[in-house]
Amino acid sequence: LLRRARNMEDYGRFLALLASALLVGFVSVVFSLVWVFQYREGLSWDGGLREFNWHPVLVITGFVFIQGIAIIVYRLPWTWKCSKLLMKFIHAGLNTIAMILAIVSMVAVFDYHNARNIPNMYSLHSWIGLTAVIFYSLQLFLGFAVFLLPFAPVPLRAALMPIHVYSGLIIFATVIATALMGITEKLIFSLKDPAYSALPPEATFVNCLGLLLVIFGALILWMASRSHWKRPPEKNAKVLQPIGETPEGTEAESTMADGSNADKSDLRINSEAARKQNLKFDEAGQRSTM
Amino acid sequence: LLRRARNMEDYGRFLALLASALLVGFVSVVFSLVWVFQYREGLSWDGGLREFNWHPVLVITGFVFIQGIAIIVYRLPWTWKCSKLLMKFIHAGLNTIAMILAIVSMVAVFDYHNARNIPNMYSLHSWIGLTAVIFYSLQLFLGFAVFLLPFAPVPLRAALMPIHVYSGLIIFATVIATALMGITEKLIFSLKDPAYSALPPEATFVNCLGLLLVIFGALILWMASRSHWKRPPEKNAKVLQPIGETPEGTEAESTMADGSNADKSDLRINSEAARKQNLKFDEAGQRSTM
Repeated sequence: LLRRARNMEDYGRFLALLASALLVGFVSVVFSLVWVFQYREGLSWDGGLREFNWHPVLVITGFVFIQGIAIIVYRLPWTWKCSKLLMKFIHAGLNTIAMILAIVSMVAVFDYHNARNIPNMYSLHSWIGLTAVIFYSLQLFLGFAVFLLPFAPVPLRAALMPIHVYSGLIIFATVIATALMGITEKLIFSLKDPAYSALPPEATFVNCLGLLLVIFGALILWMASRSHWKRPPEKNAKVLQPIGETPEGTEAESTMADGSNADKSDLRINSEAARKQNLKFDEAGQRSTM
Repeated sequence: LLRRARNMEDYGRFLALLASALLVGFVSVVFSLVWVFQYREGLSWDGGLREFNWHPVLVITGFVFIQGIAIIVYRLPWTWKCSKLLMKFIHAGLNTIAMILAIVSMVAVFDYHNARNIPNMYSLHSWIGLTAVIFYSLQLFLGFAVFLLPFAPVPLRAALMPIHVYSGLIIFATVIATALMGITEKLIFSLKDPAYSALPPEATFVNCLGLLLVIFGALILWMASRSHWKRPPEKNAKVLQPIGETPEGTEAESTMADGSNADKSDLRINSEAARKQNLKFDEAGQRSTM
């Protein structure tokens, strides 16, 4: 009973953090819209400043907010009864949307620069930002090939999972750092009279947007790095499933292999026998997903 | 034997990463010096641009490089035979040096701004940078009070350790993000003819410095987040100690409590009995450190 109370308390803490992250992320998106509509010329696709304005809006919506949600989607307790495969599709889908928005946001800047004869790719912001988009696309492609397609053997999945998690979080943090550089650049370039240094209302407002992005990143990284909030291995999930709900049959078995194996970064403690059994489950799973 | 070979391989991998981090960190410091001596007016404490130049040099040396080393100092395998208390002093000492350098680096900017009548604290860089210094000082103070002084009870240490680790890493990442914003600001403000957008040699050089800082951060965060590279709990350390070396007596016992308890974020698996024993050890340890 005490354990159950503690679990409920922990669940409440998770919900509070999730609500905070969603709120801060949502407010960041609203701030980016207020910025471009209230202080800049709004949005359109005309090669002018209004085309540039898509850049911050799409980056903050896609590359920050949606990427952040994609990172913690496995952590949502009410999804633990869904099949792992479904959750992988949601994770990959959200990341694909984020990637597309990030690429469109870059096209907006290149278009605007070319229309105005402003050089491309000179700033540290652009160097790190382009690197982040390239690594993000690579990560998505590799994640799809290794963890979603049914061809990669379990030991490979297990070996790559810690790297996948680490590079995902590093890319996310780098994207936020890049957004902060972008805000810095934009405020210096666009605030002329009064200048950024006079701290006009727009400067204060957009500085606050920068702070929100840092808080959003810190919340997501906290939720993603608490090991006790991880989706439990399928064996337990099955036990936890309420009676009366039908288990997902072979699909549940297919996810079992990944859940109990590739998901644990701590494979070393597995005995050889357990590994063999997991391999067997995985083979069954592969067949069921194909 | 196979296990031993795997351990050696893992040790080699750790050494390679450590060497890379030290190299990238050292080269970053050299780059900051080349920047101010080759492209800017060098260093002095005269209220002019040369005083400002202390800012990037001290931030990169102290707040990035030394803080990074302080983060991974427990990971160095050859320190595992040293007492935990000694390592805590080194960890706290390095962080104190980093904090002092960060504060001096801020004084340099305020001094320079005041001498030139440039407003202070308007930019996102300054907002996030000052926040980072405040949180860093708080973290150092709390870490000293809870983990170094012998008064905090073990359950409190255990409860605060994951938060200490998380906020340490978040602050470190935020400091690097702030440095990238600082580089962006400085290059825009100081490169006029040719401008930043023409990418003169200084711009390319300092952009590379920014990339080095990101790589340094990524290396440190990888080393800090691999659980199998953690300092082992003292029980094992004692077993691993080569025969002939004298154990550090009560000191070793004092560190045992922290090593096996406060260090593990995963306290929940400890049985009540084990916790009581740790408490006993800790009491012994507290006496020995006082």
